[in-house]
Amino acid sequence: MSSSIKSTNIVEVHHHVTCEARADLNRHRGGVLWLTGLSGSGKSTIAMELERQLFNKRWQVYVLDGDNVRHGLCSDLGFSPGDRTENIRRVGEVAHLFAKAGLLVVTAFISPYRADRERVRQMGPAQFHEIHVATPLDVCEQRDPKGLYEKARRGEIPDFTGISAPYEPPEAPELRLNAENCTIDRTLTTLVAYVERTFALPSDQVSVGHVAS
Amino acid sequence: MSSSIKSTNIVEVHHHVTCEARADLNRHRGGVLWLTGLSGSGKSTIAMELERQLFNKRWQVYVLDGDNVRHGLCSDLGFSPGDRTENIRRVGEVAHLFAKAGLLVVTAFISPYRADRERVRQMGPAQFHEIHVATPLDVCEQRDPKGLYEKARRGEIPDFTGISAPYEPPEAPELRLNAENCTIDRTLTTLVAYVERTFALPSDQVSVGHVAS
Repeated sequence: MSSSIKSTNIVEVHHHVTCEARADLNRHRGGVLWLTGLSGSGKSTIAMELERQLFNKRWQVYVLDGDNVRHGLCSDLGFSPGDRTENIRRVGEVAHLFAKAGLLVVTAFISPYRADRERVRQMGPAQFHEIHVATPLDVCEQRDPKGLYEKARRGEIPDFTGISAPYEPPEAPELRLNAENCTIDRTLTTLVAYVERTFALPSDQVSVGHVAS
Repeated sequence: MSSSIKSTNIVEVHHHVTCEARADLNRHRGGVLWLTGLSGSGKSTIAMELERQLFNKRWQVYVLDGDNVRHGLCSDLGFSPGDRTENIRRVGEVAHLFAKAGLLVVTAFISPYRADRERVRQMGPAQFHEIHVATPLDVCEQRDPKGLYEKARRGEIPDFTGISAPYEPPEAPELRLNAENCTIDRTLTTLVAYVERTFALPSDQVSVGHVAS
């Protein structure tokens, strides 16, 4: 699918609410936390638990994952290289829209291609943090929580990342989680601290009464 | 573009944060306010002003409009009937994702086809409210804020809604705004009252300390 801009005669209409005003209301900046890793590495489990913990701290946070996107926005796409690229492009655009709306969005997609992830990083003004869920292939295959590796080994799933399709690990992710050496609790403690350090507003910048002009 | 589901072997991972918990935090439900109307009818102006006013009441609200979507998520699409349908399908899916994340999302798209709008209504569990910005064609053409009608009359823009492409007005929208008979202020007063009546939590349901279990 081409990514050249076919839309013409589109005139920009500006939001009257700034990103700064949204951050001030929410007490944290919007941004994208992009989890990447093999199937079974723990991305979705980590993302959903992170969402729960941040929500309990009253953050505006939302997880985009394969399930809520593959059944909807990207239901027309399969797993060929071109379709994977288009899938990640659309998810990236949506993630940046959420970030502009002030949310911290956590994405949980295998997103195997380095170039696709890099394109998402470049898409928006929002902060993009690449988090590598670096569980090794043999551990993922041993876990095989969905039975997919077994099917892939039997040749029943074509283009399966790590088996019959490539995974290109990030070279310089903002954070690397070696989840196989850690309990989920310790992984989450690391991640929540990272998020707060990166996206929370310093408390002296918080002025609850702030409104848009 | 096909809308059949090509994705297989997708296993659902559930959010631990419910829509009810999000509504409780935000003091309003998430939902979709779908503005439809001709080019120049006032959709974007109304949407952006509504966003400002609701934000100032501390609502989680975000406008999706042609500009922030046609340059990004839908940059591969033009204005043929098929591309318009796919454009509205994607925007609809994104709007429902925002609503699931707890936001009131306001969309400002011509969205000329009844069937496309009806498909968006059916997409999600979120409340979908169709708002017809019912400014008549002759008023829109007289305003012509972007000079597009003039270009379209000269044949310089193909498939221009109202001139060389159809607009199918909603038969039973949740709300119809006759913006040409009203000042923008009065239109906004009507709309804000409608939104509060429809999406705000009754104050006795608000319990600020509520957290997800």
